[in-house]
Amino acid sequence: MEPMNDAMELFRHQRAVRAFSDRAVTDDAIDQILQAAIHGPSGSNTQPWHFIVVRDQAVKDQLSDAYEEGIREAYGDATPARGADRQPLSAAPVLIVPCVDTPPSNRAGFQTGASIYPNIQNLMLAARALGLGTVLTTLHRRRKERVHEILAIPEGIESAAIIPLGWPTRTYGPNRRPPLANFVMQDRWRS
Amino acid sequence: MEPMNDAMELFRHQRAVRAFSDRAVTDDAIDQILQAAIHGPSGSNTQPWHFIVVRDQAVKDQLSDAYEEGIREAYGDATPARGADRQPLSAAPVLIVPCVDTPPSNRAGFQTGASIYPNIQNLMLAARALGLGTVLTTLHRRRKERVHEILAIPEGIESAAIIPLGWPTRTYGPNRRPPLANFVMQDRWRS
Repeated sequence: MEPMNDAMELFRHQRAVRAFSDRAVTDDAIDQILQAAIHGPSGSNTQPWHFIVVRDQAVKDQLSDAYEEGIREAYGDATPARGADRQPLSAAPVLIVPCVDTPPSNRAGFQTGASIYPNIQNLMLAARALGLGTVLTTLHRRRKERVHEILAIPEGIESAAIIPLGWPTRTYGPNRRPPLANFVMQDRWRS
Repeated sequence: MEPMNDAMELFRHQRAVRAFSDRAVTDDAIDQILQAAIHGPSGSNTQPWHFIVVRDQAVKDQLSDAYEEGIREAYGDATPARGADRQPLSAAPVLIVPCVDTPPSNRAGFQTGASIYPNIQNLMLAARALGLGTVLTTLHRRRKERVHEILAIPEGIESAAIIPLGWPTRTYGPNRRPPLANFVMQDRWRS
């Protein structure tokens, strides 16, 4: 994919990329992407983020196996086929696992996501800006205990996603959406 | 704030804006911002979003009261003072309430946020690109029943945030973060 700097265009060109070429991802590119992530917002500006950058093939293989189990559990016979457009996670040059501190008083809840998913979005937008592909996956959470064991993630920390990162094997056009009016209401909910 | 189109610069210039001038926000600006939101990703591309755009002063007043109760409950005596830098939500020209469908089988959980908070981030980035200010607030959720009653939000829908939107009363510099290394680990968690 071509690099892209215009912010408004960038939103329309984010695509879910699940197949990557062998081209290496440089440390500089990863740093730019993670800088974008940590400049995102968080509740009370607590910045409760941690990013595990996985390049070790053995670790990638283990995460990939746990993720495939999660997919099969979620989709059963409808599990999307692996192929040219969906490689296993183990085939990505880099996997990034964004984590967040859980609130002191309770387990991670819906709004805990407000302090990590905006940062993940920055990460994915910055990757797209450079011409790199990503996709936001969360099905590893169906094997969370195993994934946290693989990565030695301690108590009190939640893994929010596994993001494969690499150079796409092909080009992608803009994403498509129905008209805005389908999603928008004025002043109150209208059924 | 000056408009800003460069994506990588945009991430570093997102600030929490809680005070707005009287300058009106045009429908065109709101449409651009919401277009950014709906072009974000969602789990299995289900696009489970709804955005309530509140301009009616009576509705804004009610939401603002509920939010202030949430703040007082969360912060008690440490409640941030209202003043030049923190107006009540009722003073913002527009409030946007992003909502998300809850999963059919259960209540909204941590990863439900993966299908709405990235879109909220797009919304806030697009606002900043235009020179508009926003802040991601979630404390209304401590008065969720009241807020859903005010907005007539039905069962099966979660409100993810209340986002005030308007022209800032002053300029803001870039946001500041500690070194990237504070947040990043290689291959596995390191204590």
